Formats: sequence, structure tokens, C-alpha cells
Amino acid sequence: MSRPLRIALAGLGTVGGGVVQALASPELAERAGRKFEIVGVSARDRKKDRGLDASKLTWTDDAVSLVRSDAEVVVELIGGEDGVALALVEGALEAGKHVVTGNKALLAKHGARLAAIAERNGVALKWEAAVAGGIPIVKGLRESLIAYGVDSVFGILNGTCNYILTTMEATGRSFEDVLKEAQRLGYAEADPELDVGGGDTAHKLVLLASLAFGTIPNQTHISVEGIKGITPEDIRFAREFGYRIKLLGIARRTAHGIDQRVRPSMVKTGTPLAHVDAAFNAVLANAGPAGRFFFEGRGAGREPTTQSVISDLVDIARGNLGASFGWPAASLKPLQPSDPGAATSAYYLRFEVLDVPGVLAEIARHLAESRVSIESMIQRGRSPGEPVSIVMITHETSQASVERALKAIVTSDKVRARPCMIPMEAA
Amino acid sequence: MSRPLRIALAGLGTVGGGVVQALASPELAERAGRKFEIVGVSARDRKKDRGLDASKLTWTDDAVSLVRSDAEVVVELIGGEDGVALALVEGALEAGKHVVTGNKALLAKHGARLAAIAERNGVALKWEAAVAGGIPIVKGLRESLIAYGVDSVFGILNGTCNYILTTMEATGRSFEDVLKEAQRLGYAEADPELDVGGGDTAHKLVLLASLAFGTIPNQTHISVEGIKGITPEDIRFAREFGYRIKLLGIARRTAHGIDQRVRPSMVKTGTPLAHVDAAFNAVLANAGPAGRFFFEGRGAGREPTTQSVISDLVDIARGNLGASFGWPAASLKPLQPSDPGAATSAYYLRFEVLDVPGVLAEIARHLAESRVSIESMIQRGRSPGEPVSIVMITHETSQASVERALKAIVTSDKVRARPCMIPMEAA
Repeated sequence: MSRPLRIALAGLGTVGGGVVQALASPELAERAGRKFEIVGVSARDRKKDRGLDASKLTWTDDAVSLVRSDAEVVVELIGGEDGVALALVEGALEAGKHVVTGNKALLAKHGARLAAIAERNGVALKWEAAVAGGIPIVKGLRESLIAYGVDSVFGILNGTCNYILTTMEATGRSFEDVLKEAQRLGYAEADPELDVGGGDTAHKLVLLASLAFGTIPNQTHISVEGIKGITPEDIRFAREFGYRIKLLGIARRTAHGIDQRVRPSMVKTGTPLAHVDAAFNAVLANAGPAGRFFFEGRGAGREPTTQSVISDLVDIARGNLGASFGWPAASLKPLQPSDPGAATSAYYLRFEVLDVPGVLAEIARHLAESRVSIESMIQRGRSPGEPVSIVMITHETSQASVERALKAIVTSDKVRARPCMIPMEAA
Repeated sequence: MSRPLRIALAGLGTVGGGVVQALASPELAERAGRKFEIVGVSARDRKKDRGLDASKLTWTDDAVSLVRSDAEVVVELIGGEDGVALALVEGALEAGKHVVTGNKALLAKHGARLAAIAERNGVALKWEAAVAGGIPIVKGLRESLIAYGVDSVFGILNGTCNYILTTMEATGRSFEDVLKEAQRLGYAEADPELDVGGGDTAHKLVLLASLAFGTIPNQTHISVEGIKGITPEDIRFAREFGYRIKLLGIARRTAHGIDQRVRPSMVKTGTPLAHVDAAFNAVLANAGPAGRFFFEGRGAGREPTTQSVISDLVDIARGNLGASFGWPAASLKPLQPSDPGAATSAYYLRFEVLDVPGVLAEIARHLAESRVSIESMIQRGRSPGEPVSIVMITHETSQASVERALKAIVTSDKVRARPCMIPMEAA
């Protein structure tokens, strides 16, 4: 057996603790052909109970100082798109150390530059844990689905959102209500905005798009909408039409550039993404003539995320360094964005209107003027003079056409609140 | 860019042709950081139309002679568990050449020995294409799901069987009928035994078990049953109980050893394996505390299989050599088989009986004597004195208990034909 792989670990929270424990397994060392030795750790609180014997670890308060340790690999589990995490990762790479990180925000912002630094220094920058927890989708896109490239990627990438939507469907309760419960149970952060607003999904999607298309991670050209506007009524109607509502991150090649978007989407029951429940994540990748590939698994939590960090460490131990984004850094191309309005699909539209004569005619006229044609319509709960919901499914049309029609429709004094517009995604 | 990777290719059928075409892609070379050069090919018929310009390739009639070419990698796509394929693979490894193969029969029989030869010679033996077509499950088990090991693997690994079962369910037609159609459409071989008898699934399962448990591939301790005994009636009853029938390859760690089996199984509707349709393959792996991971994709055909071969070649080009079965060859352990009879599950049982008084009592008595208890029972189509079906779902029990009861039951003159017994798998 070769000499041990020397590792420094910054961040000893849930995942960091899991990594320390997993690295102690003799079976893992046997598998990797090398032992693993933790030569330094850094964490805010040394005394916190982590369920492991931390007394034998060499501690430092200054994470960035691990750059000067004799570690061959630095594992960054601090988080944050700049600051200490960036200084540590950049410093470690420049010092000729491999880096393993789960930091999606950092990579979405600085990924291409860091990959170039890694390459120049002959070291690996690995980040399986940054996307979809334990699912080996980074490796899958980087090393496996490469013969024909990938045309599109659809992901359920945020466990909190998927838990909330799944629970809303199962219980009929409101978004606000389920979110509060999720916070109480520890499934959602005290400040849930990054999750429910779609930002976390966006970080991950930007990374998947980069792997899929060989482009520089790009956070500028992405449209993001979270799940806050989804009502129990939308979920009920979706079910009635044979769909479920999921927050999807979608990246696809179009004739005019790459379309990146995060938004609640209708997914047909019976297709794989529709059945991804609660805390699971999933990614569906269309690999040209090789067809559709689907990966599902736990998207967060101690063990799934640890599994991904360990996989990267064993890759490094075995000498599988590879290119961080699947292409040599110099080959990564700027992302040419498509016009988001040009994206086409069928749409679910829900209008809250006053139940007065002529309201449907008015909506239908505005849709027709924007050349949006209706496939089916449901109007429930007639109560003259009171607000009711009108729900429509359109035929395939461009997002811009629907948005144009909605802009006209909201000017009507019979329409209350902003209409709800959800694309039907044929993933 | 480094110098090209020199490749010799034995077997230029559907997949071989796909590999030649895919290797010509400039994007692939950019991604791999190297060009690929085909320095020799061998195929039975040089003149066959392969949709590619074969005139520029250097041909040989003797595949084994590629061992003496200046290739760095030999791609073996000949097939067969011995003979030319074995001579070529063994010879190439001994000559210090990497080998990429899709030959599951060869690996199931000689895998551990060949892995040791590869290791001794410092070269890679890669075989992503041998299991589940384009799904990167070999890489997934070898490189990703490793922090906590894998407790069990469930696979739908044979597209022909899955096509037949899916079509039987969709049309209500018989096994024989659908098989004939599949043969006419080219989805089944003229001699279908290897597919429908479960042998092909067994080869693949043995390899997955080896990756999952670090054991020497073992074809001795595996119980195999194909799909020939499945009737449209079984499929209808399954649906009625909320299940679908799938041919599963199952490998799991038990308290007393490893259980390997291939058999038609009831899979609960709404769980991932139940929705794997037609020509798709899928693998579900339980990775201990990291949870369940599910991989689905095309399991056969030119492009999916080519994708896996290309993935192995790019791994080699990038210097990711790894251990063939995920552990150093010397660490692979002999498989300790569990007692197949000790496996427990609920069972679906179908009896064809004469509709005479006392028959149900007789069956129930034999089941009770073997301590098999019944969860639910259906008896359809009463026609006194004529054969009818009695269908039962048992509570969880051991396979041995059910088999003991069935052995007694078939001795009854009221029971016609062999009872059908299908485990309900909680995958």
C-alpha cells in the first residue's frame, strides 16, 4: 500500500464530522489502496459535540493557514461564495494542493477561474458534494455521458422545496404553513429565502449546465422563480390534469443559445421526475442519441454529502484527477444565452377573477391576440360577484406570447391578483 | 495537447461502428485533452456496410494479433466467455495494454483473474458497457457509492425481458406471442434463451455484486429463474394488488452471507423500479446510511453502449485507471453465499385448481403446516368442476417455508400444473 493521503479539513459541521468518521474506515483504505490521514482541521467551535474523538486532530483557528500545512488535499466545507472559503481554496490550489469542496455558491461564481488555477498547478478541484448531495451526477456528466454530449438537464436540486411541495400535495396545506413546519423540523433554514426563492437551485443548475455544455459557469443569464407563489389550489388542479408541480432547474441547448432557468414546473405523472418525493433529489439528462438518463438519491444530509466528498477523495487517492468541469479550463466557452422569451411549452394558467359575465371572454380575447390557444379550461365554484379561479392549459406557445397576454389581462378590473403561470415540462 | 491515444478495436458490429464514429469527434478529443487514433481493427467481414469509412482502418483477420500492435488500448467487442475474446483480453493485458470490454460473460467467469493480470501489468481493465448499457453504474459503484459500502443492489438488467413484460402488461398477450413479435422486430434473439431464461441478467448481476461487496465474481451461488412462466393472468393480478412484475437481478448482504438471485418479482407501483419501461434498464443501490440511489437509462443498443465504451476510453486517456472491480485484485474476497431458502419476503402464489369443495381448505392447511400465513386471497371465475385460479399474497415468510408448502400442495389431485410463486420485493 502506498503512503497515506494527507488531508486538511476546513469546517467540521455535520458533513465535516461525517467525513472524519468515514475516512477512518479500514475498508475504505483497502479500496482506495491508500490510508487517509487528517493532518489538520479548522472549525469555529472546538468543543462542539460531533460524535467523534476530536482530541487527536490538529486544530487551527485560521482556516486559511491550512494552505501552509503539509496536507496534499484541502477539503473546504465552510461555505460562502467569497471570503475565507475563496481565500482557502485559491490559496490551496496555488500551493499545489488538491481541493475538494461542496461549495456551490463559490463554484458558480469563481468556478472557471479556480479550475484554471488547479490545472496550472497540476492539481484536482473536485466538487461532487456541491450538487444533488449523494447522487454522482457531477461524475456522471464529467466522465460518463460524454460520447454524444448532453442536450438538456432537468434537476430537482433543492430538498427543502421538494419537501414543501410534496407535503403541500399530501396535506392540502398552504406554502406558509408547511414552510413553518419545515423550519420547526429543521428541514428549512430560519432564513429560507435561498431555498424557497430558487437561488440554491440556481447555483447548482449553473454548475450542471457548465458540465453539460462545456461553458463557463454563468449566473447572469438565468431566470429564477421560487415556489412561494404556489397555492394548494394549483397543486390540486395539477393533479386533476395528471401533473405534479416540482421546482425544476433546467438547462438546455436551443438553436439560439443556452436556456437556463429555475421555476416551478408541471411534470407529468408517470414520468421519473414526477415521483421524486420529499428529501430526494434527481437529475434527468438527455444524452442525444444515447437517450435519457435519470439519477435519483438523497440530496442533502450528513451521509449522502459525506459520500460525495469521500468519492472525490478516493478519486484523488487513486490518481483520478480529471478536469474540474470536464473540459480543460482553457476550453470552457462563454455561455451564449438564448432569449428566455423564445422558450416554448404548454402552460398552466390560473386567474383569480370576479365571477361576472364577460370575464372569460375578455381573458380569451387577450390570449387570442397574443396567439396563445387554449387546450382545456376549468372554472370551479360559481358564486356570482365573488372571486373564483379560472384554470387553463394552453397549447405549446412561447413564453413571451403568454407574458404579453397576461400583461394585458391584469389590466382588467375583473381580474384580481397576478395570474399564476406554470410551464408544462416534457422532461 | 498530449499525443493521441492509440486504440485497437476487435469487433466492428453495431457498437464497434459506433465507437469508431464517436472517437472521430473533435469535441471528444478536446474534452479528453488527447486525440484518439485507431491503429488496428479486426472483424469477420470487412465489406459489411457499417455507415463509416472503413477503408482507412488497418485491418487484421486475427483479432488476437492486435496484442502485437502498437495500440495502448485494446477494445474487445467480440463476445464469448472464452475463446478469442479471452485470448485477446488476457494477451493484451499481459502485453501491457489497457483493455476496454463490454463482455459480461467473460468477466463473470474470469473477471478476478483478469483484474489481477491488469494490476500486475499496471494497466486498466474497464467494462462500463458490460452492465446496463449506457447507465454509468459500474463507475457509480466503483467510484461513487463507496463511503458506506452497498447493502443491496436491485437491477432491471435485460431489455428484452423488460420489453416482453411491459408489452404483456400493455396488451394482455401471452409470453410466447410477445416473444415472437420481439424476435420479428429484432428486440429478441433467434435463440432467446440467454435473455428470457435469466442468464444474461445473471452475468450482469454477478458483476454488480462483485463491485458492491468486493467479492470475486461468482456464478456458482446464484439462483436464476427467467420469465417464461409468467402469464397474462399473473400480470393482471399483480396490477390488481398494486404491483408490476419485473425480472430483477438482486444481490444483497444478509446476516449469513450474500444472496444472489435472478427472478420475476412483484414491484410496488409508485416505486422507481416499477416504472422502468420497455427497453430501459435500471439499478437501485442501497448505500447504507447514505440511502437509496436509483439509476435509469437505455440498457442496450448502439449509442448507449458506445457511450459506455467511450467513457472508459476517456478515463484511460485522462489517466483514471482505477481498480477493475473497485478493490485491488488481491483484496477481492471469495463470496460467502447465504442459504437461498432463508431469504424472506411476502409471496404472490397462484394455484390452478379444480373448482370443487375443499380445495381452498386443503391449500390453506398445507400453508399453515409450513407456517405460511395469508394476507389476502382472490378466487375468480367460479365454474364448478372446471379449473380456476386461486391467488394469494402471503405475509413475510422464508422461501423455504413456501417451497415446502408448495411441494405438499402439488401432490393434491385437485391442483393442476405447478403453482406460480413470485416474491414481492421491497426495493
